[in-house]
Amino acid sequence: MQKQQGRQSFVLPTRPRVKSFAAIVGDKEGKGPLGRCFDSVIQDDTLGESSWEKAEIHMMHDTVTLCLEKAEVKPTEVDMYLSGDLLNQIVTASFSARQLAMPFLGMYTACATMAETLAVGAMLLDGGFGKNVVCAACSHFSTAERQYRFPLEMGSVKPPYSQWTVTGAGATLLSSDPSYPIMAESITIGKVIDLGQNDESNLGAAMAPSAADTLCTHLREMNRSVRDYDLIVTGDLGKVGHSLFKELCLQNGLDVSKNAFDCGAEIFSDEQKLYAGGSGVGCSAVVLNSHLLQQMQSGKYRRILFMATGALFSPTSNMQGHTIPGIAHAVSLEVE
Amino acid sequence: MQKQQGRQSFVLPTRPRVKSFAAIVGDKEGKGPLGRCFDSVIQDDTLGESSWEKAEIHMMHDTVTLCLEKAEVKPTEVDMYLSGDLLNQIVTASFSARQLAMPFLGMYTACATMAETLAVGAMLLDGGFGKNVVCAACSHFSTAERQYRFPLEMGSVKPPYSQWTVTGAGATLLSSDPSYPIMAESITIGKVIDLGQNDESNLGAAMAPSAADTLCTHLREMNRSVRDYDLIVTGDLGKVGHSLFKELCLQNGLDVSKNAFDCGAEIFSDEQKLYAGGSGVGCSAVVLNSHLLQQMQSGKYRRILFMATGALFSPTSNMQGHTIPGIAHAVSLEVE
Repeated sequence: MQKQQGRQSFVLPTRPRVKSFAAIVGDKEGKGPLGRCFDSVIQDDTLGESSWEKAEIHMMHDTVTLCLEKAEVKPTEVDMYLSGDLLNQIVTASFSARQLAMPFLGMYTACATMAETLAVGAMLLDGGFGKNVVCAACSHFSTAERQYRFPLEMGSVKPPYSQWTVTGAGATLLSSDPSYPIMAESITIGKVIDLGQNDESNLGAAMAPSAADTLCTHLREMNRSVRDYDLIVTGDLGKVGHSLFKELCLQNGLDVSKNAFDCGAEIFSDEQKLYAGGSGVGCSAVVLNSHLLQQMQSGKYRRILFMATGALFSPTSNMQGHTIPGIAHAVSLEVE
Repeated sequence: MQKQQGRQSFVLPTRPRVKSFAAIVGDKEGKGPLGRCFDSVIQDDTLGESSWEKAEIHMMHDTVTLCLEKAEVKPTEVDMYLSGDLLNQIVTASFSARQLAMPFLGMYTACATMAETLAVGAMLLDGGFGKNVVCAACSHFSTAERQYRFPLEMGSVKPPYSQWTVTGAGATLLSSDPSYPIMAESITIGKVIDLGQNDESNLGAAMAPSAADTLCTHLREMNRSVRDYDLIVTGDLGKVGHSLFKELCLQNGLDVSKNAFDCGAEIFSDEQKLYAGGSGVGCSAVVLNSHLLQQMQSGKYRRILFMATGALFSPTSNMQGHTIPGIAHAVSLEVE
């Protein structure tokens, strides 16, 4: 069977399965509209550690461990651990891999990382490389804020279109065992798209064009329409980015108004006053690995396109005058 | 055919091929013992750009472009671009992907990144995902130094066991077209290994245990011996790390004294007085994509194990008291 359906899209004939999933979040996420969906809500965002960075590693480790426990799979039975995060040199992923003692492939396309790990994990399983692959991603408000923006102690004011980095980790155990109902059906690998946005507070706008590009590419190469999906999920465009995404889709002849869902726009309520919504690698990771996969299990959604979106920049690249490009990878998930 | 030979090792039945390769380096690398092997030696390490970071992106872009030109493959014919580098948020990889307009998967396991991209790229091709995959990695002395250590202007003194970050980018075009002689035969994905080293100037010592672990695992799972390889290549252990690696191998009953080759120990001469040798993501990337693959083409080596090694840390993790773990991924390359 020809797997490649176009330059960027591939079907997965063996349909790798979602064997289990888990999501652990912080207090604000727990108080949001999806709060009851998460496995665990952390009240103390240090998790008793001496730094937020150590807390982030702790949270990632606990999430992966919980995901494996749910499936009764031992860490030694995992063939590969694919993960990434926002910290410099993805130390959250690397240091959690040290504790978990699983063969490790570090991945990074900013907040598109959850989709990257899922896409690569699903392709590897479909290719016959292993039986159990853990895909995971993570972010922490307090580590991201001081690394990308300002020390929290400074109390800097954010513009209203900015987003709030999600504290949370999500993990999916993908498996070649066909006895589980949710399956990865096809994937589309994104290209880096840059329309010249350069405001590091407006990452939704930086990422929206890449989400529209990946969606158009996926539907064209797979010969599908928007209506083939119950939900077109974007990662963390937030309210500003999500409306730009819908507008860009319309300009390309796609009306996604009925089934577009943005994890960043949904994770917090307006009453929480967290600007334009959630962002961060953890945002799409925790919403996928709780609410979305639960709704698929319950039969509400039969087929969703999970499209995490990433803003590819560093504080240095921004200070050196680069604009902020975006990328989005897509994974089509289906219930058998 | 059963691809999995053990938890970490997989054979690649379709034997993805090396269609072309390229390496561009800086002035010091050009003056080293392997200087004549590189495609191009940069005299001005800014490449005319306004910052070293921009120069690094420029170098990466030029190297991938050259690699494709050698194979007469257009960027639009590349299915995936797998790459990584040492800069925060791997912006060298991301921004070169923006220019190259190729579907992009960002990867990071520090200086093991070249092997990670090759291993994943070879598995994806073997699994039927695409025809042309570019695997690339890059580092630049002047960007790494100021990001990981001190501003160059400070003129800080290094201990004699420290290493010199290679300025260079290497790219390999892997292909499913069987008409090229050098092939990826099997791979081993590394685990994160930490023996408690915590001196950020002694990364060779931090990485040596992971290289020994991956080698032992590869040989055990593939049921091979050291003598099955003409060369056991490590990435950038340098002189200190390489002697530790050989010692650790001996402790595990493996005598690699006759065929061990470390890119970091070989890229500079003693007369260049660059401490314990080369390091950085680019180190193993440029030596593989010049000298090593050239020697395979000429028939000198029939089978090598390419094992790039990475030290997984960030300045923050180090300052917060973490030790420095290492990882090594292995790719077995064979001439048909």
